[in-house]
Amino acid sequence: MKSILEIAASCNSVGDIEEVIEREGLYRFLVGGALAGQMAAGDVTALKGAAGQFNSRAVFAIDDTQHTVQFSEWCGDRTTRTAAMAAVLARLRKEDAWASLRKWRNELYPVYGDASDADNVAVMIERAASYNFGIRTYGVHVNGIRRSEGTGAVEGMWVARRSPNKPTWPGFLDQIAAGGIGDGAGVRESMIKECGEEAGIPRELAEAGARLAGTIQYFTRSALGLQPETQYVYDLELPAHFVPEPRDGEVESFEFLSLDKVLDRVRRGEFKPNCAMCVADFLVRHGVLTPENEPDYLAILDHLHRPLPYSAPTTVSPRSAL
Amino acid sequence: MKSILEIAASCNSVGDIEEVIEREGLYRFLVGGALAGQMAAGDVTALKGAAGQFNSRAVFAIDDTQHTVQFSEWCGDRTTRTAAMAAVLARLRKEDAWASLRKWRNELYPVYGDASDADNVAVMIERAASYNFGIRTYGVHVNGIRRSEGTGAVEGMWVARRSPNKPTWPGFLDQIAAGGIGDGAGVRESMIKECGEEAGIPRELAEAGARLAGTIQYFTRSALGLQPETQYVYDLELPAHFVPEPRDGEVESFEFLSLDKVLDRVRRGEFKPNCAMCVADFLVRHGVLTPENEPDYLAILDHLHRPLPYSAPTTVSPRSAL
Repeated sequence: MKSILEIAASCNSVGDIEEVIEREGLYRFLVGGALAGQMAAGDVTALKGAAGQFNSRAVFAIDDTQHTVQFSEWCGDRTTRTAAMAAVLARLRKEDAWASLRKWRNELYPVYGDASDADNVAVMIERAASYNFGIRTYGVHVNGIRRSEGTGAVEGMWVARRSPNKPTWPGFLDQIAAGGIGDGAGVRESMIKECGEEAGIPRELAEAGARLAGTIQYFTRSALGLQPETQYVYDLELPAHFVPEPRDGEVESFEFLSLDKVLDRVRRGEFKPNCAMCVADFLVRHGVLTPENEPDYLAILDHLHRPLPYSAPTTVSPRSAL
Repeated sequence: MKSILEIAASCNSVGDIEEVIEREGLYRFLVGGALAGQMAAGDVTALKGAAGQFNSRAVFAIDDTQHTVQFSEWCGDRTTRTAAMAAVLARLRKEDAWASLRKWRNELYPVYGDASDADNVAVMIERAASYNFGIRTYGVHVNGIRRSEGTGAVEGMWVARRSPNKPTWPGFLDQIAAGGIGDGAGVRESMIKECGEEAGIPRELAEAGARLAGTIQYFTRSALGLQPETQYVYDLELPAHFVPEPRDGEVESFEFLSLDKVLDRVRRGEFKPNCAMCVADFLVRHGVLTPENEPDYLAILDHLHRPLPYSAPTTVSPRSAL
C-alpha cells in the first residue's frame, strides 16, 4: 500500500523546471519570447537539417549557445506556424527521426502565447510530438458519481478499467471518462464528447449533470518525456438507473465503487497515476480526505495544484458572461 | 471594477521567495535546517543584544555572512524553544523594539518542522511576532451558504461586514466566519469556534453543515511584512431560517447575497483580498466561474493554490482513519 502523498509525488515528479533544464542541458522552446516547452538536445538536432525546412526556409531559429528553439521570423502567425510545423513533423515521421511519431494521432494540440490571435493560440502541434516539444497540454477528467436519493450523500463513483490493449497504462483504473482537449475544442464540449465516446453517456445526461469543479495540475516525466499537464475536473452526477457502457475500445469494463473502495484502490496503486490525483482532488473537495485523517493533507494539495510556467489559454467568450 | 485575476494577484503578490530574499537582503529563519520564514535585517539586529538572551544565553545563532537565523543548539526541543522565544519577545515588547508587538495578541502560532514532536511542532510564537519571523500561518475560512429546498441549488452566501473599528481592513466584506488557527487547536475545532464567536452559529449547526473543501494558499505582503498563508476552506450549509448575529465586535453586520451579487462585490474590491480569494475558490469549485466565462481561469487558479516552501503540519490522528 502506498500513501496518497507517494502517489501524488510520483505523478507530479518534476522539480523546479529551471533546474531541470540546466541539469539536463535541455533547450527552451520559446514562443513570443516566453517559455512554451523544453526539448532534449537530440530532438533539436533533428530540426537543424533539411527536415526542419518548409518551402526551403528554416522553420526554427536555434541558438546552441543560449539553448533555445523558436520559430523563424517569417513564421509570424498561427496559420503559418501550424503549416510549417505540420510539414516538419511529416518529414520527421517519414524519416523515423522521432520514435514518438510512430504513434501519430491526427490530433492537434494548441500552444498558447500569441495575443494577436483571438484564442491566444500561437501554433497547433500534432499530439504525438507534444512530448518532444515538452508543451503544456490540457485535458478533461470526469468523476462519475451517484448520490443517495434520500440523504443526497455521494454513494460512490464509477471507475473504468482501461483496456489491456491501450499503449499506455493498460489494465489500470481510470475515471468514467477522460481525454485530451485537441483541435481547439472547448473545455465543456470536450467533456461531453469524452462522456459519449468512452462511456456511452448521452449528451443530455452529461449536460445536465456535469459541473466543472476546478483543475488538477502536475508536471510529470514519463518514458515519453516531460509533460506539464492541466486537467479540468468535472463532477458528473448520474441517475441511479444509468449504467455506463464501454464504447470505443479504450475501456474494458466499468465498476461502481463506494468512496472507501475507490480510496483503497488508489492506495494499492491500481489507478493510472494522474487519475489517482483526480480521485484525491475529489475526496478533498468533498471533505472525505481531511487533515484529521490524512497527515500529508497540505503536501498532497501542493502536488495537485502545481503552477506551470507556461502561457495559458484565454477564451473568446465575453468576460461579462457571469 | 477589477478583474478577479487582478484581485488574486494583489493577494498572492510575492514572487519567487528565493529572489525576494536575495533582492531584499532578508535573513532566512531556519528550523532544523529548513526554511521556516524570513526576516528583515533590522528585526534580526534586535535579536543580537541582551534582548535575544534567555537565562543569559543567546537564543539564536545568527550568521551575518549566510544571512541565517536559527535556534541555538541548547534550544533543542519545542518546550525550550517556546519558552526562550516568549522571553525574547516579552523583552522586545517592553523595549518597544518591534512596532508589531504593540498589538500583542496572547495567541500562539505554531512553526512546524520537528519530527520528534508528535505534532511536528518546533516552536510556538506569539501571533503578533509572526510577521517579523515571516512564518507560514494557518487559518479557517467559512463560506456560509443556503440551498434551495426544491432544487438543491446554492441560493447565495452570507457575507460579513467587518467592524469599522478592526485594526486591519475595517469596513471590508468577509466570510461569515474566519480566523487564525492558534494555540495548536485542531482545524475543524477552530472552524466551529469561529462560527460560534463571530456569527453566533450553534455548534450543532456548524458540526452538521460544514464540509472541508480544500485550502487556498497565497504569499502576500502587507504593511506588516511577508505572510505565507494557508486557509482551510469550509462550505457551511445553513438552514433557511437561520440568521447569523454579530457576537464579538469583529463584525458590524451580516447580509445574504446571491452569488451574482457576491461576485459583483468581489469585482468592486469590497472584500478583504484573501476573503475575495476564498469566494473565487468557492465559485470555481461550484462551477460558477468557468473557462467559458472567465478568460483568466487558469491564472486565477495558480494564485489560489500557491505552493509554499515551508514545513507543513502533520496530525496525530492515525493515517488509517478513513
